[in-house]
Amino acid sequence: MLERGYDLLDQYYDKMVSIRRYLHQHPELSFKEFETAKYIANFYNELGVNVRTNVGGNGVVARIKGGKPGKTVALRADFDALPIQDEKDVPYKSTVPGVMHACGHDGHTATLLILAKVIHELKEELAGTYIFIHQHAEEYAPGGAISMIEDGCLDTVDVIFGTHLWSTEPVGHILYSPGPVMAAADRFTITINGKGGHGGYPHFTKDAIVTASQLVVNLQQVVARRVDPIKEAVVSIGKFVADNAFNVIADKAELVGTVRTFDEDIRNHIEKEIERIVKGTCLANDCDYVFQYFRGYPPVINHKSETEFLANCAKAIPNVQEVRETEPRMGGEDFAYYLQHVKGTFFFTGAMPENENARFPHHHPKFDINEKAMLIAGKTLYTAAIQYQNKHVEAVQIV
Amino acid sequence: MLERGYDLLDQYYDKMVSIRRYLHQHPELSFKEFETAKYIANFYNELGVNVRTNVGGNGVVARIKGGKPGKTVALRADFDALPIQDEKDVPYKSTVPGVMHACGHDGHTATLLILAKVIHELKEELAGTYIFIHQHAEEYAPGGAISMIEDGCLDTVDVIFGTHLWSTEPVGHILYSPGPVMAAADRFTITINGKGGHGGYPHFTKDAIVTASQLVVNLQQVVARRVDPIKEAVVSIGKFVADNAFNVIADKAELVGTVRTFDEDIRNHIEKEIERIVKGTCLANDCDYVFQYFRGYPPVINHKSETEFLANCAKAIPNVQEVRETEPRMGGEDFAYYLQHVKGTFFFTGAMPENENARFPHHHPKFDINEKAMLIAGKTLYTAAIQYQNKHVEAVQIV
Amino acid sequence: MLERGYDLLDQYYDKMVSIRRYLHQHPELSFKEFETAKYIANFYNELGVNVRTNVGGNGVVARIKGGKPGKTVALRADFDALPIQDEKDVPYKSTVPGVMHACGHDGHTATLLILAKVIHELKEELAGTYIFIHQHAEEYAPGGAISMIEDGCLDTVDVIFGTHLWSTEPVGHILYSPGPVMAAADRFTITINGKGGHGGYPHFTKDAIVTASQLVVNLQQVVARRVDPIKEAVVSIGKFVADNAFNVIADKAELVGTVRTFDEDIRNHIEKEIERIVKGTCLANDCDYVFQYFRGYPPVINHKSETEFLANCAKAIPNVQEVRETEPRMGGEDFAYYLQHVKGTFFFTGAMPENENARFPHHHPKFDINEKAMLIAGKTLYTAAIQYQNKHVEAVQIV
Amino acid sequence: MLERGYDLLDQYYDKMVSIRRYLHQHPELSFKEFETAKYIANFYNELGVNVRTNVGGNGVVARIKGGKPGKTVALRADFDALPIQDEKDVPYKSTVPGVMHACGHDGHTATLLILAKVIHELKEELAGTYIFIHQHAEEYAPGGAISMIEDGCLDTVDVIFGTHLWSTEPVGHILYSPGPVMAAADRFTITINGKGGHGGYPHFTKDAIVTASQLVVNLQQVVARRVDPIKEAVVSIGKFVADNAFNVIADKAELVGTVRTFDEDIRNHIEKEIERIVKGTCLANDCDYVFQYFRGYPPVINHKSETEFLANCAKAIPNVQEVRETEPRMGGEDFAYYLQHVKGTFFFTGAMPENENARFPHHHPKFDINEKAMLIAGKTLYTAAIQYQNKHVEAVQIV
Repeated sequence: MLERGYDLLDQYYDKMVSIRRYLHQHPELSFKEFETAKYIANFYNELGVNVRTNVGGNGVVARIKGGKPGKTVALRADFDALPIQDEKDVPYKSTVPGVMHACGHDGHTATLLILAKVIHELKEELAGTYIFIHQHAEEYAPGGAISMIEDGCLDTVDVIFGTHLWSTEPVGHILYSPGPVMAAADRFTITINGKGGHGGYPHFTKDAIVTASQLVVNLQQVVARRVDPIKEAVVSIGKFVADNAFNVIADKAELVGTVRTFDEDIRNHIEKEIERIVKGTCLANDCDYVFQYFRGYPPVINHKSETEFLANCAKAIPNVQEVRETEPRMGGEDFAYYLQHVKGTFFFTGAMPENENARFPHHHPKFDINEKAMLIAGKTLYTAAIQYQNKHVEAVQIV
Repeated sequence: MLERGYDLLDQYYDKMVSIRRYLHQHPELSFKEFETAKYIANFYNELGVNVRTNVGGNGVVARIKGGKPGKTVALRADFDALPIQDEKDVPYKSTVPGVMHACGHDGHTATLLILAKVIHELKEELAGTYIFIHQHAEEYAPGGAISMIEDGCLDTVDVIFGTHLWSTEPVGHILYSPGPVMAAADRFTITINGKGGHGGYPHFTKDAIVTASQLVVNLQQVVARRVDPIKEAVVSIGKFVADNAFNVIADKAELVGTVRTFDEDIRNHIEKEIERIVKGTCLANDCDYVFQYFRGYPPVINHKSETEFLANCAKAIPNVQEVRETEPRMGGEDFAYYLQHVKGTFFFTGAMPENENARFPHHHPKFDINEKAMLIAGKTLYTAAIQYQNKHVEAVQIV
Repeated sequence: MLERGYDLLDQYYDKMVSIRRYLHQHPELSFKEFETAKYIANFYNELGVNVRTNVGGNGVVARIKGGKPGKTVALRADFDALPIQDEKDVPYKSTVPGVMHACGHDGHTATLLILAKVIHELKEELAGTYIFIHQHAEEYAPGGAISMIEDGCLDTVDVIFGTHLWSTEPVGHILYSPGPVMAAADRFTITINGKGGHGGYPHFTKDAIVTASQLVVNLQQVVARRVDPIKEAVVSIGKFVADNAFNVIADKAELVGTVRTFDEDIRNHIEKEIERIVKGTCLANDCDYVFQYFRGYPPVINHKSETEFLANCAKAIPNVQEVRETEPRMGGEDFAYYLQHVKGTFFFTGAMPENENARFPHHHPKFDINEKAMLIAGKTLYTAAIQYQNKHVEAVQIV
Repeated sequence: MLERGYDLLDQYYDKMVSIRRYLHQHPELSFKEFETAKYIANFYNELGVNVRTNVGGNGVVARIKGGKPGKTVALRADFDALPIQDEKDVPYKSTVPGVMHACGHDGHTATLLILAKVIHELKEELAGTYIFIHQHAEEYAPGGAISMIEDGCLDTVDVIFGTHLWSTEPVGHILYSPGPVMAAADRFTITINGKGGHGGYPHFTKDAIVTASQLVVNLQQVVARRVDPIKEAVVSIGKFVADNAFNVIADKAELVGTVRTFDEDIRNHIEKEIERIVKGTCLANDCDYVFQYFRGYPPVINHKSETEFLANCAKAIPNVQEVRETEPRMGGEDFAYYLQHVKGTFFFTGAMPENENARFPHHHPKFDINEKAMLIAGKTLYTAAIQYQNKHVEAVQIV
């Protein structure tokens, strides 16, 4: 059974690549993935598979029942893109200015669609039920997972598996972590309100750019001085905008950033310390501010037994060269919510491009994946889904 | 003759206000003032006055010859607006998003148009010739003056007068400076090129926002530490843009600013020191940069004798309560170029709003003027133009 | 046997306290602990115990042979103090201006001396040999351990135990870590050479204080931006001196600091990044610099089996309420070197003062310990030393 | 009469140099110039000139009455040194560690002593009375002038002249300014109180060095952003001390600096802005502070007519090549107080060393003067003193 699935996946690899490239060329921002959702639904419709759309927003959920009784296994792929300008020079480059699949969700989706096709073809011989969760809006809190769960996507599900293609790990490597694997990912915004004026008369103004710049510099202290060095924490500012004419002193500056932690106390402490620094820096500059802190996804905490099961499954797959435990990553993932409801695990599939010049970290304007990784990801998810049935076959039969 | 001109200006004050408010509602950015130029030309056409358009770009020059021989006096008003969002709550608020007459050029233009109408009506009795220079693009180097001069706007001109309405001085005050009156106004851009990435993985990136923020903070030293404290200098940064998602580390940050000086050595020194700081800060952060420094207008240096003449003229005008010498201003003005070619002076006309809550500095999003100042400005320019003839009447008659 | 030792330790507790207080009043800086070394040697001489002085410097090593064959167990206490002004208000306050036992080494020494006295009294009934390593210069690299080892203090030793009294943990708590327990502790110095001058003429100078201040601020980035957030690292600057008259601009500023890590790659990377920031910041300020980086102690890596043995010993001691695994500490310790040569473990003994107002972290000018902790420390070391013999009794007897 | 004075000065030049070098080797700090005062008094005693010591502290005042009636002219020289380590390599280098005549007061004193000797020799033929004010403590507020004046040093004085040797102007140049010539010179101290601790545990501390460094960086804004760029202002920090071990986090940091202005409003504004920045920066860092601002000398405002008189005197002196108006200097001088009580002027005498490698600004560790400047200074003061009598001779005779 495993072999037949692998063969079909190999056979449909070209299709997988073409789906991925189509999606890559047509990225959509979080919560605005209308066309991508249609594309996914359409794929299932053409297969003749039962699909539910608008699940908790733009989410799409398909269901394939095997010919034999068994467990219900959910597999999840996200499908939103990022507000980044694609700077790659490839034929499948994004066609949408300022929007890009810079995190590999296009690959996740292509993998899951083809895997669904394969399972659909083999379904008569398979035990159990397979739920394909195509999740919108992973990149932007509150994310799509929470509302898809509220809308029932996990109902009757026994276990869930998900993977992330990872551009800095070689193809053939599977990385797992039996416990925390991804960070709590919060967002904050700081608006500095100074007093604008003419660039030649600083003494009549309160310069919002100078104030915000001091703030960025001072915020480096949060991690460097105010968090236990044994504990993990990141404070990053991704957006600094004060867009005036060259000869104008800025009335206002807007900062937006993220905080990553694995520990609730550190998380609370950092929020407090950021505000302390904002308050003091604004006082020193006689400016006002608005500080908002948005709690993002909780940390992703894998279940130990399902993680070890997944790791064992991965070891047996052809072309998987290395299966190893990894340290937790500072990225956030709303896969966290699924694992608060059902058992499961979230793992990484190495996807480093062959060409050294094409290797960039996630969210980089030149990010790309090695498409062969999709085949590894597909086979790993397939193996976990099938083997999970075998593992539970006795219990099932008794029922 | 003076009285008759004053009476006509008083009589046309409502018209002056309505022109100013029309222009205020329809601002256009520097070098894009196509409709404003048409509006001005049309005004002269309706008067039946000879007008030349597209002078050195969007410039408009009208010429009215008096009934008697005399000197050729040029009067100049600029008419471009700024990339600022109008935040005033008035009926004549800008109708163009992000564009605003935040420096009073609308008032300059309304004043000069009505003054032209008055001179046109009185021309038979006036000596000399009057050139009305409606200049585009004062706010953005290289400015309109230099190309209008190249296109002949000063040919045959003997003397030039210009004024700036000034929102922080009371109406009824005229300020002059026999020597330097406005600064050299340069522009610079700094692009920081780091290495982008995911907000949770700073160690894989070179954070352009942190680098640029350090730069803004460090650049404060140029004026504070590296310029003779006896000498005037300003370095201001009006634009800081690195506009990414909250969870992205910035690949690039763009800074744009201005330098104001009155001394060529200081000007050169500041350019060098900015680059030194950019270079060192980028080295410390392992980032690259592109630094560009654009020389703007030279300082405006008034001619002593014409300035004293203007000040004496102003003292005799009804409702002018104070005529006083002022320190030079840090703003730049391409009026500087006219004064490199012909004698003349540039002065300030107090235009502080009556309502205390409406008082804001130039280039502020809530900037407004007291429209009564236009009448003072008009009368002062009129007086200078007429008296200049009288002053030179003997020489003229001999010719 | 254990009970008798405990009883004797209890009985000599007052003596232990008086030794500790005497040392507290007479602190000596690292490598200058001449009087303290004499005091220790004298104690052994009075006991009639064989003692070797000037071991690898100011080190003192005593040796007590039990009445029965057995293993050789080394116990270590350090005895140097810190260049900190004692700001406590207690009768046993330091009598030496600017020098203070702000880390508890006085307590370590008092504990070990009394423990030696007890073992000396019981020696006839004890198996094995006991080496009391009184180490000088723990606080200042290269430290005393390395030269004491070269001078033979570990010769014939089978196992070593050492503890640190810990003021932020309650008395009765023993903390252990089977693996890394203390950080690599490096020192660096940065001298900024600018150009001095009169405070009123900054433009003739290169201000070393401004440059060094920028440097301190910029160095916060090393940990915040340039080290993997999953990895532990600290960069702290303890000394900033530029001591001129108020109206002088500084020619020179001197910074001295420390780097703490657990990983050789991170350690190397941080050294490189500090220099990068020093270089860039000096370039931006047209200053010169001298940067020196001194490798301090390697991380203390406990041996797993000896650590678990110690933890088990501790659990059985009266008044020990909690024995728990701890995370590694960022402090450095040259105990690291002993563990590179022989098996052993280094653990923490809670020593939090009862009075809440007396609780301060190590190296604080008001640091103090709860002296009762010395009794717990003494009993734990005693238990480990004695039980270690029992554990190995068979092997010994066979010999 | 002028010629004879010049000749005598030339004749005693070697003596002048040897006095200056003696003083240079034996510098004393402000308010501690006990030996220097004795040296000066002794000089007059040996001449047989009436001298009063301990005038308002360490001040010394000598009085020589001419043989004819006339005005009373005061000449002033200061004689204190600075807390700077002499780094010159010359035979007359300071013999006192950390103390140095780095501002030329040794030269002022040698000049005035020899000038007194000359006037003493010529006194029978001279009109008027000559007061030689040897002032202590010019370098450290509140300075010696104010208490010397209170102690009567200006009683009966009609006019006062003083000069400063200036190492950055060529010998032979005299610089004068009819109006403001030196700045108001204030001093401030800021003590940052954080919370100390071990260098490896920043999160338990409040790092006073990081806070104080941010403060130094942020204070650059005062001049760069918050003072009218047309107005002169300096804020410099000369002392930054937080002197701990490398592995200690600083409990406390001490900053001491100076503010220079010419305008009382700017002076008040800067004091307020410094405190605002201190307050905000400490709030951001959760530290406390003590901020103290000490008003120093007021600006030195020369009297116009006496300044022009002095300039005219200077033009006639042999070897004076250039007498020119200068901009005001940012240095402070308590000569300001004399000019609040009597007419007079304070001017600069060029004293640039011939050797280019010996040219350093005042207060530099390698500062030196060209000793020939003393001769020019002496002749200029002599000329002014004598000519002042001539100028007033008629009025005097009438009385």
